[in-house]
Amino acid sequence: MTLLEKVNSPQDVKKLNLAELETLAEEIRQAILNRDSKIGGHVGSNLAVVEATLALHYVFNSPLDKIVFDVSHQCYAHKLITGRQDGFLTDEGMKRISGYTNPKESEHDAFVVGHTSTSVSLACGLAKARDFRGEKHNVIALIGDGSLSGGEAFEGLDNAALLKSNMIIVVNDNEMSIAENVGGLYENLRLLRETKGKAECNFFKALGFEYFYIDNGNSLSDLIHTFSEVKDTNKPTVIHMHTLKGKGYSLAEEYKETWHWRMPFNLSDGSLTFQDNKETYNSITVNYLIKKVEQDKKVVVINAATPGAVGLVPDKRRQLGQNFVDVGIAEEHAVAFSSGLAKGGCKPVYMVLSSFIQRAYDQLSQDLAINNNSAVILVFGGGISAADVTHLGCFDIPLISNIPNVVYLAPTTKEEYLAMLDWGIEQNSHPVVIRVPKEVVSAKLDKVDYGNLNVYQTVEKGRQVALLGLGSFFGLAQKVAEQLKQKGVHPSVINPRYITGIDEILLNELKKEHQLVVTLEDGILDGGFGEKIARFYGKDAMKVLTFGGKKEFTDRVALEELYQRYHLTAERIVQDILETLKTC
Amino acid sequence: MTLLEKVNSPQDVKKLNLAELETLAEEIRQAILNRDSKIGGHVGSNLAVVEATLALHYVFNSPLDKIVFDVSHQCYAHKLITGRQDGFLTDEGMKRISGYTNPKESEHDAFVVGHTSTSVSLACGLAKARDFRGEKHNVIALIGDGSLSGGEAFEGLDNAALLKSNMIIVVNDNEMSIAENVGGLYENLRLLRETKGKAECNFFKALGFEYFYIDNGNSLSDLIHTFSEVKDTNKPTVIHMHTLKGKGYSLAEEYKETWHWRMPFNLSDGSLTFQDNKETYNSITVNYLIKKVEQDKKVVVINAATPGAVGLVPDKRRQLGQNFVDVGIAEEHAVAFSSGLAKGGCKPVYMVLSSFIQRAYDQLSQDLAINNNSAVILVFGGGISAADVTHLGCFDIPLISNIPNVVYLAPTTKEEYLAMLDWGIEQNSHPVVIRVPKEVVSAKLDKVDYGNLNVYQTVEKGRQVALLGLGSFFGLAQKVAEQLKQKGVHPSVINPRYITGIDEILLNELKKEHQLVVTLEDGILDGGFGEKIARFYGKDAMKVLTFGGKKEFTDRVALEELYQRYHLTAERIVQDILETLKTC
Repeated sequence: MTLLEKVNSPQDVKKLNLAELETLAEEIRQAILNRDSKIGGHVGSNLAVVEATLALHYVFNSPLDKIVFDVSHQCYAHKLITGRQDGFLTDEGMKRISGYTNPKESEHDAFVVGHTSTSVSLACGLAKARDFRGEKHNVIALIGDGSLSGGEAFEGLDNAALLKSNMIIVVNDNEMSIAENVGGLYENLRLLRETKGKAECNFFKALGFEYFYIDNGNSLSDLIHTFSEVKDTNKPTVIHMHTLKGKGYSLAEEYKETWHWRMPFNLSDGSLTFQDNKETYNSITVNYLIKKVEQDKKVVVINAATPGAVGLVPDKRRQLGQNFVDVGIAEEHAVAFSSGLAKGGCKPVYMVLSSFIQRAYDQLSQDLAINNNSAVILVFGGGISAADVTHLGCFDIPLISNIPNVVYLAPTTKEEYLAMLDWGIEQNSHPVVIRVPKEVVSAKLDKVDYGNLNVYQTVEKGRQVALLGLGSFFGLAQKVAEQLKQKGVHPSVINPRYITGIDEILLNELKKEHQLVVTLEDGILDGGFGEKIARFYGKDAMKVLTFGGKKEFTDRVALEELYQRYHLTAERIVQDILETLKTC
Repeated sequence: MTLLEKVNSPQDVKKLNLAELETLAEEIRQAILNRDSKIGGHVGSNLAVVEATLALHYVFNSPLDKIVFDVSHQCYAHKLITGRQDGFLTDEGMKRISGYTNPKESEHDAFVVGHTSTSVSLACGLAKARDFRGEKHNVIALIGDGSLSGGEAFEGLDNAALLKSNMIIVVNDNEMSIAENVGGLYENLRLLRETKGKAECNFFKALGFEYFYIDNGNSLSDLIHTFSEVKDTNKPTVIHMHTLKGKGYSLAEEYKETWHWRMPFNLSDGSLTFQDNKETYNSITVNYLIKKVEQDKKVVVINAATPGAVGLVPDKRRQLGQNFVDVGIAEEHAVAFSSGLAKGGCKPVYMVLSSFIQRAYDQLSQDLAINNNSAVILVFGGGISAADVTHLGCFDIPLISNIPNVVYLAPTTKEEYLAMLDWGIEQNSHPVVIRVPKEVVSAKLDKVDYGNLNVYQTVEKGRQVALLGLGSFFGLAQKVAEQLKQKGVHPSVINPRYITGIDEILLNELKKEHQLVVTLEDGILDGGFGEKIARFYGKDAMKVLTFGGKKEFTDRVALEELYQRYHLTAERIVQDILETLKTC
């Protein structure tokens, strides 16, 4: 029987001696690698904090003491010793247990967390609530060095430093964000590492924290020593521990960015179990931008600490040279910086995931849209998906499309995407956001002036029913059209192109020979595209059917299931259309 | 002829000697006070930086050198010496010239800015663009100490510190935000002031900046000396200058918070020209909360650096005692902190302006809504208004109402507001956001369980037409009903109560005896409430007319004009309804 099998709660960890804890750490690493290699997941960050997690649970008393994991990229060891081993050992368990903290899974998890830089503020709330309630436990935030650059983390630190009570912030300094760290702060962390925490110029002390440094953040004894020292402190305290990202798996130690998060792989040599060589919009975009930068040095490609997720792998970044700027985890800065670049005469292209652009709404509105500067933003990963609840891509249409001045485009094919991207970069009149489609579809494209805003394209002229297939759902509209034809209905098929505007001429024209307009969008319906169409026809006889997602947080629900739930299959849509037609 | 009359551009400033500059500073102060006393505006912050502004323009060469004013609370002196004196001297000019920077007003303004903490990121973009274009000018951000606590400012600083070129950040330390500064950072600024900038523990140096300290930030000679020293530097540099908020107007020097922003006042004694003693939702809310806190020490009132704007004046804050927490300019933290407080068993109530809640979309979604913690957020100032373009309150419905799990309520009367507020505080099931109405209207209220979500209230049962008057527009719906009755139409009048949900039973019921549903909402239509109703009836014969604002940025456009433009008068609405009825 392994030690891990005997550990069902943090109480069990406390019974072990140092040698046993070392053994347990090794078993935990194997379990982490087992899960990661089978279903993919965060590797390097989780391997780095195995000892720290054991030491935290050895010294503190969870769930009485609260441990808040920032972004949850480092919660696997915590899960393994809080009764969730099967999430790392069995197929069924891996499906059930998520890669993020979740109070529904365990009383040892305080929050559902998946975005970065939130732990200090959340923990600050717990600490203040404890004080108001006259309770006495410890509140601990575990935050990676990379997450410190996010504005929310700073706001949290600035407030946490003022607490006159217990608040322990463990900074896990593994010298990496997902990619390299970016920011002046990291020069200070380096100085602190080099001086073993002794440098007078200390970011955390400047904010008012008590400060402790642990040079070997993978040494159980050192960790236990320092954690014991600060336990029950009545001052806001930072423990800065230096860990090794990827610790214990040599490939992850060496290639830190590749192994931050990894698809399923073969444990022996690290090779991916399944490699998909299909053309993706990541490579299409990056290859286009590399050429563009060669032709025009004013084109600047920007990303906020997730370059790999949008195809900006190290080799491609090198090709972009100084025309690539990673701003670190700093999405707000990325948008404002892009606005400044555009104002200064450059042509910024900010590449961002749908789930993360929502970290910069105010900057989109104030810094960019009110100023009407011509930055380009490419939103990747938009759409209904089987993702974790914290990484859904179905909210960007309501978020972005209701901001004045912004032109939000929904290309349907590779050719259309590249034409829109090129137009966006070359024009000087609007902030342009493009929702990068999912599957690469190719089709001949006529030359279009996208500056002639809000002109929809009638791809197929029919009657009775008009299908408006937005962006990545245009293909679905075409499928629906095919099936309708078999039922004797010959619909018009329309590519709206613009999420942000209504083609009034075309929509009015449709009234002549159509009784039903159907909208299809890859996102939630609330606040989205279909509702704008429904409003437009509100006082007309035209009926409107809107297809899209429901306003709900889903968590790793299979896409097929969601499509069934939302009637997003061609069959269900055809059925709904035929039923509605009976009433027209 | 005054000196000010001779100064039409920064070039003219450069011709003056020190004594003349001192005289000009005095004239500028009089002009600032003239505008503020006549039409209201920012007083203390503008008075503090008169000398600094003159010194900047004396040393640097705007518009070749770029000066970005954070939040623009300190841009009046700048406006006065860049050809916009009439904005401070004549009635017509005061209407035309805004209180914020705006490139449409002058080539010396780089951006439209009205939200805080943005200047460093925007300036960073200008600096990087300059470098890409091989240009050589200075880029300067002028940022107040209060604004430094905002996450975007930190993200900007963290990135600016990495530039290997010219970037000058002037920190205007007047020891105040709008109210007192909040945050560990301010202890460091105090230390730096006390040591005349010599303390080794230095927030800015920790980030990697060259650092200069000016002890008397109202001394023209000192300012000119230091600005000259850093001019054309090739390193990211912070100039930390200590200024006196309210300088030159003794009341503003003494009562810094009252005089940060002031309604029109009598110059002689500072008394307000016009005092409105009507009951407001500010006082209703604060008085309710003071009582609530007396009864329940778990109720915590939170605000992010704009306490006065929501009625949390110093006296009321004292009454709330430690149950009031000002987190400083840190809206993201405010939301996450509230979520943590709720999770920890407290009852947080975050009071925020509509224009500023948009700084925390990701926190609303991730930290709060996904976790479904029962914090209460009160959104003040929501609605179509004559405000500056950067402070519009018409976007919060699309922003908030499309986030799952959130219950966004729209009370119509004082009694309903207080009942909803009390329910929100006492329940433990949902994040509850309440859109605080504008005008105080009183009406008898039946006991309602608001936990029975999305049940609309039929206030008047009629037929043919149903009016859904949301929140502050419920009164408008009642007016429309009155006028319709005179035309022989007897409409139903409905209070939807919930912005976030559809009462399907009621809406289906309406189909029996109504042909037209009319929605009225005090915000933009795009992504809003009316569109949800239009979508609901999309496949029915029911016609839907939606009334609300257009998706556009308006800048100090009179409310009456906007109401005309959007058909938001009872007369226009009745006319539109009668016309539509003809087609039903």
